[in-house]
Amino acid sequence: MVKMKKLLFIALIVFYGCEEAPKQEPTFGIVIHGGAGTILKKNMTPEREAEYRAVLAEAIQVGHQILKAGGSSQEAVEKTIHVMEDSPLFNSGKGAVLNAEGTIELDASFMNGADLNAGAISGVRTVKHPISAAIKVMENSPHVMLSGKGADQFASEQGLEIVSPEYFLTERRINSLKRVQEAAKAKETSWAPEERNFLKNQRYGTVGCVALDLSGNLAAGTSTGGMTNKKWNRIGDAPIIGAGTYANNATCAISATGWGEFFIRSVVAYDISALMEYKGMTIQEAAYEVIHNKMAKLGGDGGVVGIDRNGNPMMEMNTPGMYRAHMDAEGNLEVKIYQDE
Amino acid sequence: MVKMKKLLFIALIVFYGCEEAPKQEPTFGIVIHGGAGTILKKNMTPEREAEYRAVLAEAIQVGHQILKAGGSSQEAVEKTIHVMEDSPLFNSGKGAVLNAEGTIELDASFMNGADLNAGAISGVRTVKHPISAAIKVMENSPHVMLSGKGADQFASEQGLEIVSPEYFLTERRINSLKRVQEAAKAKETSWAPEERNFLKNQRYGTVGCVALDLSGNLAAGTSTGGMTNKKWNRIGDAPIIGAGTYANNATCAISATGWGEFFIRSVVAYDISALMEYKGMTIQEAAYEVIHNKMAKLGGDGGVVGIDRNGNPMMEMNTPGMYRAHMDAEGNLEVKIYQDE
Repeated sequence: MVKMKKLLFIALIVFYGCEEAPKQEPTFGIVIHGGAGTILKKNMTPEREAEYRAVLAEAIQVGHQILKAGGSSQEAVEKTIHVMEDSPLFNSGKGAVLNAEGTIELDASFMNGADLNAGAISGVRTVKHPISAAIKVMENSPHVMLSGKGADQFASEQGLEIVSPEYFLTERRINSLKRVQEAAKAKETSWAPEERNFLKNQRYGTVGCVALDLSGNLAAGTSTGGMTNKKWNRIGDAPIIGAGTYANNATCAISATGWGEFFIRSVVAYDISALMEYKGMTIQEAAYEVIHNKMAKLGGDGGVVGIDRNGNPMMEMNTPGMYRAHMDAEGNLEVKIYQDE
Repeated sequence: MVKMKKLLFIALIVFYGCEEAPKQEPTFGIVIHGGAGTILKKNMTPEREAEYRAVLAEAIQVGHQILKAGGSSQEAVEKTIHVMEDSPLFNSGKGAVLNAEGTIELDASFMNGADLNAGAISGVRTVKHPISAAIKVMENSPHVMLSGKGADQFASEQGLEIVSPEYFLTERRINSLKRVQEAAKAKETSWAPEERNFLKNQRYGTVGCVALDLSGNLAAGTSTGGMTNKKWNRIGDAPIIGAGTYANNATCAISATGWGEFFIRSVVAYDISALMEYKGMTIQEAAYEVIHNKMAKLGGDGGVVGIDRNGNPMMEMNTPGMYRAHMDAEGNLEVKIYQDE
């Protein structure tokens, strides 16, 4: 009789245990962006378009492999971003845009959704992979955000790969800076609305990655060179937790790209999470509200990618284009550039 | 008959017009803080306590005068913070804490609730009033956040008062740094939990101000020297829009103080606004939720002050004390230091 009771007890536990288990099978997924802006088919050669699509596909597959093998979303985000940081096509790592002095200043941030831990660096000049420096700040310092020479020094102390500032330079970005500076000079007024508009079109190429792993952990990372001809050690949204990057296992992981000043003022990445948590919106609804209503009303533009706790991807923008890709657990890959694709 | 109908129509419009008019008379108010932490009566002399209360009262009255005369919340916040930046008692401007190299690096941010415009600087070393530099970034640059030498240069170009780094040094902070560094040395491990705990108690004194003016405009500002013995050009929450500072006429104005890393990860200032906007919480309920539940659960501590669009003040902390004051439109002044006051 006692044995019977015991068995019944165990059966009940198993039964209710099954009832309480999440209905969703463990899944994973990854979404990336390589910057948003006035990216138009008429300005693109087929060769260049193919190059972008190839690197986006290569990068996302690196993260997908890690996730498929049961690796962490943190590792997937880091390694995926490395591919884009190494590519001269994007405004991050090698190929980053140049500041007014003709040198690079790189920003990056990373956040884990499991424990809301985060790390960021701004204005580094010698770290080959800024996203890894952001992760090291999170893991091995008591701080969240380091900047300038101090951030370079910390990265070096952590054993990250250090390169000379020349490593990052590309002819394309040197020419961009020249064009921007000539335009500014021609106008004789440094920050006229016309120049702002011109500058606006020099901000493409920030890279970002969000991922959900098989353990249900979300992570987000963003890496950028900021905007061409930037002055006064300007810091954009990319290294700002809540603006350019946010992750929370309760809601979603977000990485943003665009006119950073507006993304800071709109607290874009966190606001998407807040609308999901507090208003019960889907990731798609929340991103639409923040990008097309809240941020756009201030006059800003750009885009975001995200993934929610169930693996639903999101890629939203109010610009003509955003380099982006998504890969689900089944390995279905979509790579897109133009808004209406 | 037609006339009667017309009269009735006008009467109805007037009636409903009155109903829809805001019930609240235009009002104004101001709240300030001078840092939160382990501030205990047993560690305080009556003289020192009186000094703190006197400067808090002096500072808030400067802003109150401006608001009473119909001045803007922006001006009230700026001029009030100047008083605290000039006082060696607080960890901002003169009297700021020292970094690991024995020099100061000052951070500040400002936000206007009317247009969500914002400005911030981090790591400046020569600007007498960092809050004014943050405001100049907002007003006279296309950026939101500048850092390091670039921020110093911008402030100088803007004609702000520039001082030598020695101006900020005080014997008290030089001694604090020595004590912290000796403690770190004694433990031979730089970032042991014990040292973190010790450092935790060296972070008091960030200053902040929030105000509502007679035009219904909210503004928030924060200014700090960061944490004693900070390394690697660390950036805390004070210059981060959304973390240390946020203002939105639809909800509230917030300035935070405390263990900055946790305030960044919790997006504290914006989260209070989001809970009001999305969940209909009062400013008091929202601040309680963010400080005592969300941020505290990560292990952080500190406090926030705020004011909502109707002039309701808020001062919330999970530390034993926070230097703080509130003054309403009638001129009622409350100055408090300990949590249970």
